[in-house]
Amino acid sequence: MLDKTTRVNYLFDFYYVLLTKKQREYMEMYYLEDYSLGEISEIHHVSRQAVYDNIKQTENMLETYEKKLNLYKKFQERTEIIDALQEATAHKKHTEIERLIDRLKELD
Amino acid sequence: MLDKTTRVNYLFDFYYVLLTKKQREYMEMYYLEDYSLGEISEIHHVSRQAVYDNIKQTENMLETYEKKLNLYKKFQERTEIIDALQEATAHKKHTEIERLIDRLKELD
Repeated sequence: MLDKTTRVNYLFDFYYVLLTKKQREYMEMYYLEDYSLGEISEIHHVSRQAVYDNIKQTENMLETYEKKLNLYKKFQERTEIIDALQEATAHKKHTEIERLIDRLKELD
Repeated sequence: MLDKTTRVNYLFDFYYVLLTKKQREYMEMYYLEDYSLGEISEIHHVSRQAVYDNIKQTENMLETYEKKLNLYKKFQERTEIIDALQEATAHKKHTEIERLIDRLKELD
């Protein structure tokens, strides 16, 4: 199991396009640029609580999108298969390559 | 270029999870079960115009989601690579297989 921050970072990568500009800004400052809640609240002239609530709400939105669209889960499954495919190709295991291609097809 | 109905069907497949219950119902009746706007309006006791507006709005939403997330576009690109991968495997073209696996990796 990944720790929470890593998971949030991944979910953010997949779904930030669906967030508002403000949601993205707070998330980027907090998770990518490592600002504290206090620092973000000072820079944006809002209360620390407002920043905290916004970030928590955004995190919930990301989990809701993932529950519906499974982009991160599918990405993980695909990555696993592609790695195995690379391994099978290196050893010229054709039956295995064919089996893995079939699994890739089923994923979509 | 696919005709519009086919494209809408595909977009619906990828993004219906993000639509409301009513949006899904109208879209399914109109596009999948081939009801007319008039028939849908009678069944749901709303005006024909209301059904039409709802469906048009939903179509716009699907295109907006696709513009942001590109799930259908990526699916098409992935399908093309996987087909080529299957072809290359059948002919045991290892360099080609490796090249295609690299392209798959870049897609995500």
